Amino acid sequence: MELVERLLNGDKRAAAKLISLVENEDREAAEVLRELYQHTGNTHIVGITGPPGVGKSSLVYELTKVLRKKGKKVGIVAIDPTSRFTGGAILGDRIRMTELSTDEGVFMRSMGTRGHHGGIAKATTEAAIVLDAMGMDVVFVETVGAGQSQSMIWECVHTSILVEMPGMGDEIQALKAGILEIGDIFVVNKGDMEGTDQLVKELESVAEYKAMEQEWKPPVHVTIATEGKGTDEVVSSIEDHLEYLKESGEYQKREEERTKGEFTRIVQDLLLKKAFAGERSKKFDQLLKEIIEKKTDPFTAAEKLLEE
Amino acid sequence: MELVERLLNGDKRAAAKLISLVENEDREAAEVLRELYQHTGNTHIVGITGPPGVGKSSLVYELTKVLRKKGKKVGIVAIDPTSRFTGGAILGDRIRMTELSTDEGVFMRSMGTRGHHGGIAKATTEAAIVLDAMGMDVVFVETVGAGQSQSMIWECVHTSILVEMPGMGDEIQALKAGILEIGDIFVVNKGDMEGTDQLVKELESVAEYKAMEQEWKPPVHVTIATEGKGTDEVVSSIEDHLEYLKESGEYQKREEERTKGEFTRIVQDLLLKKAFAGERSKKFDQLLKEIIEKKTDPFTAAEKLLEE
Repeated sequence: MELVERLLNGDKRAAAKLISLVENEDREAAEVLRELYQHTGNTHIVGITGPPGVGKSSLVYELTKVLRKKGKKVGIVAIDPTSRFTGGAILGDRIRMTELSTDEGVFMRSMGTRGHHGGIAKATTEAAIVLDAMGMDVVFVETVGAGQSQSMIWECVHTSILVEMPGMGDEIQALKAGILEIGDIFVVNKGDMEGTDQLVKELESVAEYKAMEQEWKPPVHVTIATEGKGTDEVVSSIEDHLEYLKESGEYQKREEERTKGEFTRIVQDLLLKKAFAGERSKKFDQLLKEIIEKKTDPFTAAEKLLEE
Repeated sequence: MELVERLLNGDKRAAAKLISLVENEDREAAEVLRELYQHTGNTHIVGITGPPGVGKSSLVYELTKVLRKKGKKVGIVAIDPTSRFTGGAILGDRIRMTELSTDEGVFMRSMGTRGHHGGIAKATTEAAIVLDAMGMDVVFVETVGAGQSQSMIWECVHTSILVEMPGMGDEIQALKAGILEIGDIFVVNKGDMEGTDQLVKELESVAEYKAMEQEWKPPVHVTIATEGKGTDEVVSSIEDHLEYLKESGEYQKREEERTKGEFTRIVQDLLLKKAFAGERSKKFDQLLKEIIEKKTDPFTAAEKLLEE
C-alpha cells in the first residue's frame, strides 16, 4: 500500500491518513495494521495521566522540546472523550503545540474514544502501532481524566507518568491509594503553588511504599511546565525507566502483557462483529425486543443467542 | 433463593451479599440477576459525575437527606477505580455517610471496576438491578473521574447530573464542549467560591445550546453541599426531569438504549468466556506466543483463532 510506504519513510501526512483510516475502522484498517505490525517494537510508549487542570498538555509540550534537542523523534497522542453531539474529538488548549507541528520530527494527534468500552486502549494501541512503524523514538499518550482511564492506559504503555498539582482537594487524597499505583514517575506540576512541599512528601511516601514491592522506586519531580522548569529531570527519569525495564527483564514482561491485551481486544472485536452479523443480528434485535417487553431477561436471552 | 426473597423484602444485608456475589462473578451471579430482573423497572437511576474534588459525595449525601424527608427510598452506588495492588475499592471520604447507613431506607455501596473495559457500565447495571428489585425509588450512581467514565455512565442512567466547581482551570473549559453534553442537570458546587457567577453563566450558555437540540433545557443550580444549600432545588429538578422523560416518550427510549447496552455487554461477556475456554484457550496461548515472537501479527492470529 502506498500510504504504508510513505509512512515508513516518515511522511506525517501519511501517518495522519492512516490513523484516520484505523480510527474509522475502514475495511482496510486490519490490513494496514497487519502490514505495519512487522515494523513495530522500537518505540518507547509513555503514558501521561492525571486529573483535569494539572497541566498535562504543557508538560508533554516541554518534554517533547527536551527530547527534540536530544535528536529524538516524538509522537504525541491525546486521547479525548468523544463528543456525542458533534462526533468530533475535543482538542483542548493545544495552541502552543502549533510550534511543534511544523517540526518534521514531531507528530501530534488527538483521538476520540467514541465512548466505546475499551476505546482508550484501542485508540492507544492502534496509534502506537502507526507511530512506532513511522520510526518515532518516544510516543506520549496523554489521557484526560482519572480512574478507569488511568488503569486502562497502564496496560498499554511501557512507562507511566502521573501528574498532580498542589491544592486539588480532599478527593485526591482518597484517590491516591488506588491511582498513584500506576505511576512509574510522579510529577508535581505548578510547583510554585502553595502545598507543593506537602504533596511532594506524600508522593515520596507512596514511592517508598512502591519500592517495597518492586525494584523501581518512582522518582518525584517538581515542574513548572509553562516555564520549562524541571522538565530535563523528567526526561532523564523517562530514559532511566526504560533502561531499568530492559535490564531487569521487566520490558519483555510488559511487552508480553501489552501484546496479550492487544490480542484479546482484537479477538473480542472480531468475535463481536461475527456475533452481531447477518442472521445473528436479526436474532439479537428480536431478543432485545423480548427483553424490553419483559418477556425474557438479558441473561437468558444471551444464552439463547449464543446457543445457535 | 433465600437471599433473593430477603432482598425483595428490603433486607439491606441481603443486598450487600447479593452485590458481592454479582461483583465477584460467582457462579450463581447470572442466576440471581435473572431472578431479580423480573422485579426491576421501577427505579429512577441518577448518575452523578464530575471532576475529582468538586464535592460529589457531599452532594449525594445532602440530596439523599432531602429525598428521605419526602419518604423516598434511596440507593447509593459509588463506582471507584480498583486498586491494582490491594484489589480493594477506594472508599473516599464517606465518613459523613455513616449517619445514613443506619437508616433502613438508604443503602450505600462502593464498587470497584477492576480496570475491566466496560467495568463501570457493568458495575452500574448490576448494582442497579439489585437495588431496583429491592424497591429503591431513586438510585444514585456516583463516578469518580471524567471523560470516558462519564460517557459510559450516560448510557446506564435515566438522569445525569454534572457537578462542577469554580476555579478548576483552563482544561475544564476545553472539556466542556464534550463532557457537558451528558448533563441533564448542571450543579455548580462550592457556590460561595470566587468565579461562581462566571461558571453559572457558561453553563447556562451550554444549556441554551442543548435546548436547541432537545426539548429539555438543563437547569443550572448553585449549591454549597456541605451546608445543605441549594439541594432542595436539585431534587426538584431530578423529579422534573423524570416527569419530562415520561411525558415526552424519552423514558421509553432511554430504557431501550439502556437495555440494549446491557444485553450487548452480557452477550459479549458470555462470548468471551466461551471463546477463551478449554481448547480455544490453549490455542489462544499458543498464538499469543507466536505474536510475541513476531512470527505472526495479532490481526492474522485473531482470524486464525476464530476460524476454528
